[in-house]
Amino acid sequence: MSQLFDQLDPLFHPRSVAIAGISSSTRRGGGGPGGGVGFLDSIREMGFDGPLYPVNPKAQEIAGLRCYPSLRDIPGHVDYLISSVPAPAVPELVEDAIAKGVRMIHFFTAGFSETGEDDRTQLEQQVMSRLKEAGIRVLGPNCMGLYAPTAGLAFMPGFPVEPGDTALVSQSGANAGEFVRQASERGVRFSKVFSYGNATDLNESHLLEYAAADPATKAIFAYIEGVRDGRRFVEVLRQAARQKPVVILKGGRTGAGARAAASHTGSLAGSLQVFDALCRQMGALRVESMEELADLAVAFRYLTPPAGRGVAVVGAGGGTSVLAADMIDAAGLEVPPLPETVQEELRRFTPVAGTSIRNPLDMMSIFQPEQFATTVRLASQPDNIHSVLFHTSFGFGRGDNSYVENLVRSVVAGREATSKPVVVALRPTLTGSGTEQTSAFVEACAREGIALFPGLDRAASTLARLVAWQESR
Amino acid sequence: MSQLFDQLDPLFHPRSVAIAGISSSTRRGGGGPGGGVGFLDSIREMGFDGPLYPVNPKAQEIAGLRCYPSLRDIPGHVDYLISSVPAPAVPELVEDAIAKGVRMIHFFTAGFSETGEDDRTQLEQQVMSRLKEAGIRVLGPNCMGLYAPTAGLAFMPGFPVEPGDTALVSQSGANAGEFVRQASERGVRFSKVFSYGNATDLNESHLLEYAAADPATKAIFAYIEGVRDGRRFVEVLRQAARQKPVVILKGGRTGAGARAAASHTGSLAGSLQVFDALCRQMGALRVESMEELADLAVAFRYLTPPAGRGVAVVGAGGGTSVLAADMIDAAGLEVPPLPETVQEELRRFTPVAGTSIRNPLDMMSIFQPEQFATTVRLASQPDNIHSVLFHTSFGFGRGDNSYVENLVRSVVAGREATSKPVVVALRPTLTGSGTEQTSAFVEACAREGIALFPGLDRAASTLARLVAWQESR
Repeated sequence: MSQLFDQLDPLFHPRSVAIAGISSSTRRGGGGPGGGVGFLDSIREMGFDGPLYPVNPKAQEIAGLRCYPSLRDIPGHVDYLISSVPAPAVPELVEDAIAKGVRMIHFFTAGFSETGEDDRTQLEQQVMSRLKEAGIRVLGPNCMGLYAPTAGLAFMPGFPVEPGDTALVSQSGANAGEFVRQASERGVRFSKVFSYGNATDLNESHLLEYAAADPATKAIFAYIEGVRDGRRFVEVLRQAARQKPVVILKGGRTGAGARAAASHTGSLAGSLQVFDALCRQMGALRVESMEELADLAVAFRYLTPPAGRGVAVVGAGGGTSVLAADMIDAAGLEVPPLPETVQEELRRFTPVAGTSIRNPLDMMSIFQPEQFATTVRLASQPDNIHSVLFHTSFGFGRGDNSYVENLVRSVVAGREATSKPVVVALRPTLTGSGTEQTSAFVEACAREGIALFPGLDRAASTLARLVAWQESR
Repeated sequence: MSQLFDQLDPLFHPRSVAIAGISSSTRRGGGGPGGGVGFLDSIREMGFDGPLYPVNPKAQEIAGLRCYPSLRDIPGHVDYLISSVPAPAVPELVEDAIAKGVRMIHFFTAGFSETGEDDRTQLEQQVMSRLKEAGIRVLGPNCMGLYAPTAGLAFMPGFPVEPGDTALVSQSGANAGEFVRQASERGVRFSKVFSYGNATDLNESHLLEYAAADPATKAIFAYIEGVRDGRRFVEVLRQAARQKPVVILKGGRTGAGARAAASHTGSLAGSLQVFDALCRQMGALRVESMEELADLAVAFRYLTPPAGRGVAVVGAGGGTSVLAADMIDAAGLEVPPLPETVQEELRRFTPVAGTSIRNPLDMMSIFQPEQFATTVRLASQPDNIHSVLFHTSFGFGRGDNSYVENLVRSVVAGREATSKPVVVALRPTLTGSGTEQTSAFVEACAREGIALFPGLDRAASTLARLVAWQESR
């Protein structure tokens, strides 16, 4: 086990939490979405079972909890402090925290080195060296902190209370929130999610090492703008990727993005070529969007990577079948024609007109669970087929929820009819009756543990990445 | 004007319609989604104002309309016939149609050359040569036919009754339906949408020529699996692209897709390289997915192509801003830093902590319409800025519909504050409260005529294609 893990793990499971600078305003800067009261609400939603202490000299009570004028006035011990005070008020808060014996501080507070202003950068350095001296570990500043369902901590409302096996290490709080939302609605659950901002103390290397050593974490995802200590990062990434899937989205991969990263977290984004080569060499996957990051979280949550590149494609609609085959081929996978013997068996229950059973399979068996199970069983039989992709969409006017439920029964029956991975590609609609059906279908897939991807392109490229990852090992 | 347009236009605006092979079953093959009763319902929904004649020897009445045993039994004249009978029954129906003086037939009927079976291919040839002899024009077989709101025709329920200026020529009916749904929910309306299937008579060249000559059509979109007459297509494409934006999705661009296209519409998909070079030379845009096709329909509906590559990016969230800059840079556009003077003006109403005003702009002004208008006015002022991209998402727990309405007011105010194109990138959520907010936002944007794209990548690549299209002219 990692020594660092043993040091950090208790800090990430505090017995008591104080929130300083909390206000009832909903504007950013003075609280805001996720800040101040947002943290309090989110932590309560998670069912945190220790004492929670709001700190604000101007309030007696906040959200039904007694409020303290300063950290020093809190009667009990404080393990974990969330700072939502303005940057100039931080030095005083830090002295209070040292006096109080706080073990870890998460600075939501922004307005430090990322502003590019000299006095703000100096303030950050001064505060951080004081905390290092005192032995207090820090997340941030300029970040959303920690979402850890087993510890009862969260930084935005609406996150799943139920824990899981996916970890995220993110330099951006908004991106961390988006990852949790996108992946959780498709059934992914989390061990730890870190938003670490300016990374003045705990940085990407510490948190990656922690996640690699964490027995509750099965797969690690990261959004990184700049690497603080390149040599250490290389070593930690090597170790982590040997043990678990590691998927990284590098923010600031272009000139424009790198300039934005400097303004955001004060990061030096570095060369994409070097980063890309590093990921390849270490066996980590590099992706280019939040959507891809979430797609791989879904993939590693539910799927055994396919043993090869052959895909059987099943759905209704000739043009869609053509485009599905195009997407899969373009992603570097294959759509081999099914053997004559398999086609003959499929033909027994498939009319000639308006269908195709060669692969892609354009047929209506999806509307009958037993027939669909037979379809999947037959189509996945050949040795050169390694996975099954089913595609569908909603919103064409007539369907209701019984239609959706029937479709889900078919997909579940299909998945049970083969040992090879089955994925679903869904084109989401944005308005109208399709929205409701889509939501119902997504929820049912999450409930049943089915790997669902919005769009043929995303399903195809996720499958291709899984295969590439498998081949690189 | 085109002679072909003058010939075809009256055929596409029939005075009376008969539907043969109509049944009350909802299974495909014997009616099905869009077939049989589906056509009848869809045409009634469009408010077709001439007589509608269901034909079925086994029914007295269908959906409240008197049903006729055969075409010859219909008392009045029949301009337009939809055939939903099985393929083997087609020869008899054709003789009836000739006797009845029908001017145009749409064959929903499938099971011809696309099956790859010799007897089916011969049947198709025999039927088509008989119809050619009789001077009856044909859409199909194996297609969904015509959606033409001004003519009162449609082939799926739920299509907009209100007409518009976008035309689609599609070899696939399902893809045509998906295009209409995806684009219409974002405000696009249609002049004509053709699904033409096996293209035995009217093919991509005829329909493209028609759309180019059609004064109601401002932009032309196409899904094409195989080109029937290459020489003619080149000439028609050249003429069309000179007059109007032409955007083509080529189905069967890969080996796997080409095999699927042969099974779907009996098409020989041809070389992608040749097709791509042709599009470039003629000034047509080639895209690779239904999503891109719909995105460009939205773009040409609402936007004047930007005069250059500089984009001002506005949104809340540091990490999202970094990724937006990355996406835009990677798409071949630019995110130039704003001049100091502009930054100073923005700083007047933007706090230092947790924001950036360099470009991308990470700030909260979107929540105040007047401030957002000022932001857009200032950010779009510099000569090296040619468009504005605003990005947002929903589903982070607290927002309700007043939040959405306020956001829409801001975007409208922002668009009015500049003469340069403003686009919105929206990350859709699939379930939960974000779904409703997303729907409400999408509907409001469609109502207000705002160009909205799902995802940063799609917004960036659409802007890039618009600029490239503009530069190629």
